[in-house]
Amino acid sequence: MAEPSAFAAPGSTKEVEDGRALTPKFDADGLVTCVTTDAQSGELLMVAHMNAQALAQTIATGDAWYFSRSRKRLWRKGEDSGHTQRVVEMRIDCDQDAVWIKVEQQGPGACHTGRRSCFYRVVPLGQDGAVTLAFDGDKTFDPTSVYRGK
Amino acid sequence: MAEPSAFAAPGSTKEVEDGRALTPKFDADGLVTCVTTDAQSGELLMVAHMNAQALAQTIATGDAWYFSRSRKRLWRKGEDSGHTQRVVEMRIDCDQDAVWIKVEQQGPGACHTGRRSCFYRVVPLGQDGAVTLAFDGDKTFDPTSVYRGK
Repeated sequence: MAEPSAFAAPGSTKEVEDGRALTPKFDADGLVTCVTTDAQSGELLMVAHMNAQALAQTIATGDAWYFSRSRKRLWRKGEDSGHTQRVVEMRIDCDQDAVWIKVEQQGPGACHTGRRSCFYRVVPLGQDGAVTLAFDGDKTFDPTSVYRGK
Repeated sequence: MAEPSAFAAPGSTKEVEDGRALTPKFDADGLVTCVTTDAQSGELLMVAHMNAQALAQTIATGDAWYFSRSRKRLWRKGEDSGHTQRVVEMRIDCDQDAVWIKVEQQGPGACHTGRRSCFYRVVPLGQDGAVTLAFDGDKTFDPTSVYRGK
């Protein structure tokens, strides 16, 4: 069901890049990319997506709302786990197709696998061909317990 | 023209999330999202995309390569401007559809508008309806000079 967007359509490149109007450039699926970092440590916690409604609700409430591509629905971060995110600052990029939110992460972590950050594996550099990832980020909670029955 | 991918196809969810094999989940356009931060300051510089070749070349060379969706071609960051990015660390997220690179940004900035970061505008929170962006990030170079004739 299409919701009316809270945002005006993007104008010229100059207006989008140099203007003061928030005119997000949603992709073919109606989404912008959202980069979420920890407001205190600066650590990258997760990358997710927002549709117009998620973006509008995040701006209005200061809580992080996303659109789940797998579940195809709006989603308030932490609605199941309690691990909500309070937005300290939001920024938008030059072409207005990506937003950056700096958040206060509630609870032990942002990742559904039970870790603080989704980026718990390092990709070694300087290699051709098959690459073996290195884990760096312990589990901080038990996802089977936190998401039980959800 | 389809290039053979340097990467194996993703396996089960458990293999993708808990495994040591790099099996990126490219989207329908053959891309993963790349989040690029400054290795020293932690600042978010840009969000871009990589296809299999860009990802493989970034891993092999330690220089940041992207795939330009607008120009539909592989692109070594800084090939026109000289503002290259040396990758200090690469990480991949739980479902392997986003990578995070921490880079040493060469030159005055990463953004084609002439700023250090693409995220030079703040979205004020607590508002319904139309939003006025606040600029926070001066121009650090003159893009019309840097990209002249490119």
